[in-house]
Amino acid sequence: MRFMRIGSVGLERPAAMDRDGTVFDLSAITPDVGGDFLAHGGVDRAEVAVAAGGLPVLDLAGQRIGAPIARPGKVVCVGPNFRKPGVTDYPDEPALFLKAAGTVVGPDDTVLLPRGGTAVDWEVELAVVIGATARYLDSPADSKGVIGGFAVSHDVSERAFQHERGGTIDKGKSCETFNPLGPWLVTPDELGDADGLGMRLWVDGVLRQNGTTSDMVFDVAYLVWYASQFMVLEPGDVINCGTPPGCAIGLPDKPYLRAGQIVEIEIDGLGRQRQVIGQA
Amino acid sequence: MRFMRIGSVGLERPAAMDRDGTVFDLSAITPDVGGDFLAHGGVDRAEVAVAAGGLPVLDLAGQRIGAPIARPGKVVCVGPNFRKPGVTDYPDEPALFLKAAGTVVGPDDTVLLPRGGTAVDWEVELAVVIGATARYLDSPADSKGVIGGFAVSHDVSERAFQHERGGTIDKGKSCETFNPLGPWLVTPDELGDADGLGMRLWVDGVLRQNGTTSDMVFDVAYLVWYASQFMVLEPGDVINCGTPPGCAIGLPDKPYLRAGQIVEIEIDGLGRQRQVIGQA
Repeated sequence: MRFMRIGSVGLERPAAMDRDGTVFDLSAITPDVGGDFLAHGGVDRAEVAVAAGGLPVLDLAGQRIGAPIARPGKVVCVGPNFRKPGVTDYPDEPALFLKAAGTVVGPDDTVLLPRGGTAVDWEVELAVVIGATARYLDSPADSKGVIGGFAVSHDVSERAFQHERGGTIDKGKSCETFNPLGPWLVTPDELGDADGLGMRLWVDGVLRQNGTTSDMVFDVAYLVWYASQFMVLEPGDVINCGTPPGCAIGLPDKPYLRAGQIVEIEIDGLGRQRQVIGQA
Repeated sequence: MRFMRIGSVGLERPAAMDRDGTVFDLSAITPDVGGDFLAHGGVDRAEVAVAAGGLPVLDLAGQRIGAPIARPGKVVCVGPNFRKPGVTDYPDEPALFLKAAGTVVGPDDTVLLPRGGTAVDWEVELAVVIGATARYLDSPADSKGVIGGFAVSHDVSERAFQHERGGTIDKGKSCETFNPLGPWLVTPDELGDADGLGMRLWVDGVLRQNGTTSDMVFDVAYLVWYASQFMVLEPGDVINCGTPPGCAIGLPDKPYLRAGQIVEIEIDGLGRQRQVIGQA
């Protein structure tokens, strides 16, 4: 099943998309799609309701698409996590940090360059959305039971704030609008284990990132298990699993984002984002 | 006005304490004390209701005291921020990082040593609770208008997770129960500008930290203004303003916390915490 949230900011309606692409309004069975919905049988209820027929069909024309889940309790990010050609030396364990949950916006919302920012960069990432509380999972094999779904995530980053302003990289990760998410939350029974998915990002039509989730140093199951050793993962929490090569910071001319540019992002099976870059 | 939340975890009732120490149940005027309450006139409504009389009096005997605000949207922490004897060189700007908001617990709740942890340390801190949205404040003088109140905060930290496990220090800051908060949320009109407040922390009765908010390198107004340049501060958000000298990591024998120990913490005008250290 694919879930969506449709409507203006703060007034999104919960919705489900069937395999034919028809979108149904889920307002009759849940006030929202978020941690409570995922943790308390919402997916099953939605499947039953869609199969039974009778839910109102939503026409998406002209409608804003919101993030596919309500405000997360937290957004956990993973540092460098993709293999690169010619590189054989990788960290023994994942780097984790947090991103302010209020940065989560819809997949096509404007991304604002922060005031004083000079080095805003792109990062296509696979987001894991937690569906059940995870606390000290015994092994990565247990992660499957706590994953609610997957989504496309744009982990926008300000490199100068990250590296030149003191403290941790969090300072360059939490600016307003810095985490477009969606359009869909796709459940594991539809997507599988999220391995082997192509990940692509374009800036003004130029392909800048072209990777695959198969190149993750630590896979989804490992990351969820690992994070659960350091914090309690709660339903609705998001884990951004790291980004493949191709960010501006790694390019010779460091072509950081400018107002007016267009970023487009897609991951196989998870849909496509399109953001206009604006100025805060 | 002093606000509290009284009752078992997840079922706390909103309450207000008058200057005589009498505690009134605020359930009749608000479902909770949190961001919505602070942003939408809750303090004024509570003052009117307490002055009018008729609110039920709560007997705290045998009752759990919760964190004085509902789950924050985010917890922002400030790195090294206190002057030390003999030190004259301080950073040009504050170090900021995030702590998972789910770590917030009541002031007297058990603090759990995380599994695999070896270096759990204490940090008494002044918490600022945001009362109105703050986005690119023009100057520190504007901070006063967005501060909802102050509280005692215990920014519990696992030093090995922070420094020896890769990534940022967030990994040692977000373990379950790592942010006792309260007992009170004290409004600025009662507390003033939070300058010159003594801050003390004892472990098993031994005074380990004995500082004052006057020794902060960056004061409250500066920190709120500064943070608002990097992220949107929302009502109910918490800023932990850093800790004075005296943590275990800075002591010759590094006496990190052990299960069964008792930590007591107080800040002038903000009340007192007492935690038993347990094992996750």
